[in-house]
Amino acid sequence: MASSILSDCSSARLLPFRRALLPPPAARFRPCLALVSPRRLFVSSPAPLPPRLRRMDSVLAAAASSADSATVSTDAMAKVIDGKMVAKQIREEIAVEITRMKDAIGIVPGLAVILVGSRKDSQTYVRNKKKACEAVGIKSYEVNLPEDSSEEEVIKHIASFNSDPSVHGILVQLPLPRHMNDENILNAVSIEKDVDGFHPLNIGRLAMQGRDPFFVPCTPKGCMELLHRYGVEIKGKRAVVIGRSNIVGMPAALLLQKANATVSIVHSQTKNPEEITRQADIVIAAVGVANLVRGNWIKPGAAIIDVGINPVDDLDSPRGYRLVGDVCYEEASKVAGAITPVPGGVGPMTIAMLLSNTLESAKRINKFK
Amino acid sequence: MASSILSDCSSARLLPFRRALLPPPAARFRPCLALVSPRRLFVSSPAPLPPRLRRMDSVLAAAASSADSATVSTDAMAKVIDGKMVAKQIREEIAVEITRMKDAIGIVPGLAVILVGSRKDSQTYVRNKKKACEAVGIKSYEVNLPEDSSEEEVIKHIASFNSDPSVHGILVQLPLPRHMNDENILNAVSIEKDVDGFHPLNIGRLAMQGRDPFFVPCTPKGCMELLHRYGVEIKGKRAVVIGRSNIVGMPAALLLQKANATVSIVHSQTKNPEEITRQADIVIAAVGVANLVRGNWIKPGAAIIDVGINPVDDLDSPRGYRLVGDVCYEEASKVAGAITPVPGGVGPMTIAMLLSNTLESAKRINKFK
Repeated sequence: MASSILSDCSSARLLPFRRALLPPPAARFRPCLALVSPRRLFVSSPAPLPPRLRRMDSVLAAAASSADSATVSTDAMAKVIDGKMVAKQIREEIAVEITRMKDAIGIVPGLAVILVGSRKDSQTYVRNKKKACEAVGIKSYEVNLPEDSSEEEVIKHIASFNSDPSVHGILVQLPLPRHMNDENILNAVSIEKDVDGFHPLNIGRLAMQGRDPFFVPCTPKGCMELLHRYGVEIKGKRAVVIGRSNIVGMPAALLLQKANATVSIVHSQTKNPEEITRQADIVIAAVGVANLVRGNWIKPGAAIIDVGINPVDDLDSPRGYRLVGDVCYEEASKVAGAITPVPGGVGPMTIAMLLSNTLESAKRINKFK
Repeated sequence: MASSILSDCSSARLLPFRRALLPPPAARFRPCLALVSPRRLFVSSPAPLPPRLRRMDSVLAAAASSADSATVSTDAMAKVIDGKMVAKQIREEIAVEITRMKDAIGIVPGLAVILVGSRKDSQTYVRNKKKACEAVGIKSYEVNLPEDSSEEEVIKHIASFNSDPSVHGILVQLPLPRHMNDENILNAVSIEKDVDGFHPLNIGRLAMQGRDPFFVPCTPKGCMELLHRYGVEIKGKRAVVIGRSNIVGMPAALLLQKANATVSIVHSQTKNPEEITRQADIVIAAVGVANLVRGNWIKPGAAIIDVGINPVDDLDSPRGYRLVGDVCYEEASKVAGAITPVPGGVGPMTIAMLLSNTLESAKRINKFK
């Protein structure tokens, strides 16, 4: 097990997907470059954001040429896509908009969260969402139901929020207790308040040309926002999404497709994931397998969005573990043109996008522009 | 313009998509092999269908090895995927099922078609659908409305069919007159009777893991049925869909993805379509550009499903034109392992799948298995 603070990409815990996709043993246990050249995951002070519309081409080209020399020097470094900083900026933009709306029409957005049971992690997520809402001026509503509640009780609360004009977004914290049918419950959320964007009608509209979803699911929306804010061109580029979950991989692929990328989806049944990923100018990895994507999977200069947040053992950490992404950052950052760190990449964007969806909903419901 | 009965893939009319995707002029005007070795598009008598579960691997391997020798011999030929014959077989299966249901519960499936205006082509399509229904025992209902009808009038008829228990499928013939909003009208069709499968809720369920659509759109369903009936293995294979329309390309990609292929979608913004297509074990071409996909786009042994039905000038034909697909059949059939002809490939499958969806709906509504 990994016991060093260095990102040892060869020794992370093996989950089924990773086993299925791993290169042959000889390659698998090639020592991670990080062991030779340790360095920090984060830039120490956030660099100023590049202007929204600036093209990534120059960054990518520069990174490509430096990636070419990565075999002789380990100093070549991808641009760090700083999700923490972008999320902060977005939260500030949202706060300004909320003040503007309140001043103009006297309405503040409202987000209702329904939590069933007493899972510690879910309680933490709900607390964080509540705090984030308060910080930008969104009013939050919370319902805590006991673990043994019935589906009907949950749906009754959803129905009440559906008809409450001060609530513009409704979120049911997952996972739900086992005796409940997620689909029945999630489908009860009004399509106009489904700020998670998980409703199949939303997904269908996301998939279709000429239609727009009411809400884009938060994590994939965060990935796209990072690409946009760092000026990564998408149109006409090859994009690979690794993973095809309903909440990240699949909608991320649909978003990239809507933005005119040529998209391929790599999953557990894909026979040559490295080869396909290596063709991509943009990679979104969302599979939940620590360090799956190695440096040699990456096309020089590619933009890498790492959605994975995987705990791996780390005896040096007070918690006994540390968090790593689906991408071996130490290796990939020497080849890629731009890359998100874990943590501090996509993670902070998800809540920021939830706030953004809630504001958007309040504006739409109140016809405020 | 093409004036020969030979498939001259280099001289078909150029539409915008084709222009965007065409290889450089030197390659573009390379004479089509068909000019050297003319032959018929169809097998003269349908070969017996391979057993449903037989794997295509042996066929593909044999075809691959014969494709390798295609440079020295033009006799190497892909297996012809005979949609006309498969559709006939499916219609027979449907007729048997309808008789069984009628005998058991006294109910026959009903399909309602709404036609607005008097376009000749739409009238022909509706007439063909009606004939196909009659042939298998589906009762058809038809409403013809004048061109200047209002959206409300059309929706009123849809609502009436929605609540009619003898109607199990409702189809609004497209295109609708320009003053109507397709989305409003199509969304009025009850999701349980949307046998076209175009409703975004259906598409969302198609995209999502763990969900199933009420209906799979007919043409993509026909493509998948051809692959299944010819024993083409899909799981773990590379698939490329050319085109991303809401009614064919996009749902076809979702279906291939659900069947565990690794799917890439090629479209008008794709920079290197030949290169990507050449990686595919399965190609579904649905872009509506005559002879776009040349022989050198095809991986030896690949299975090719050609959805295109494009008229090209042909002075030798009494009609002055003939129909060709999106794939240059003459070239592709020398490289591919299996290929659908045009006409006689996917075309006949679409109506067969409409009948299949209508039967499926009647069974579901009446809980008949």
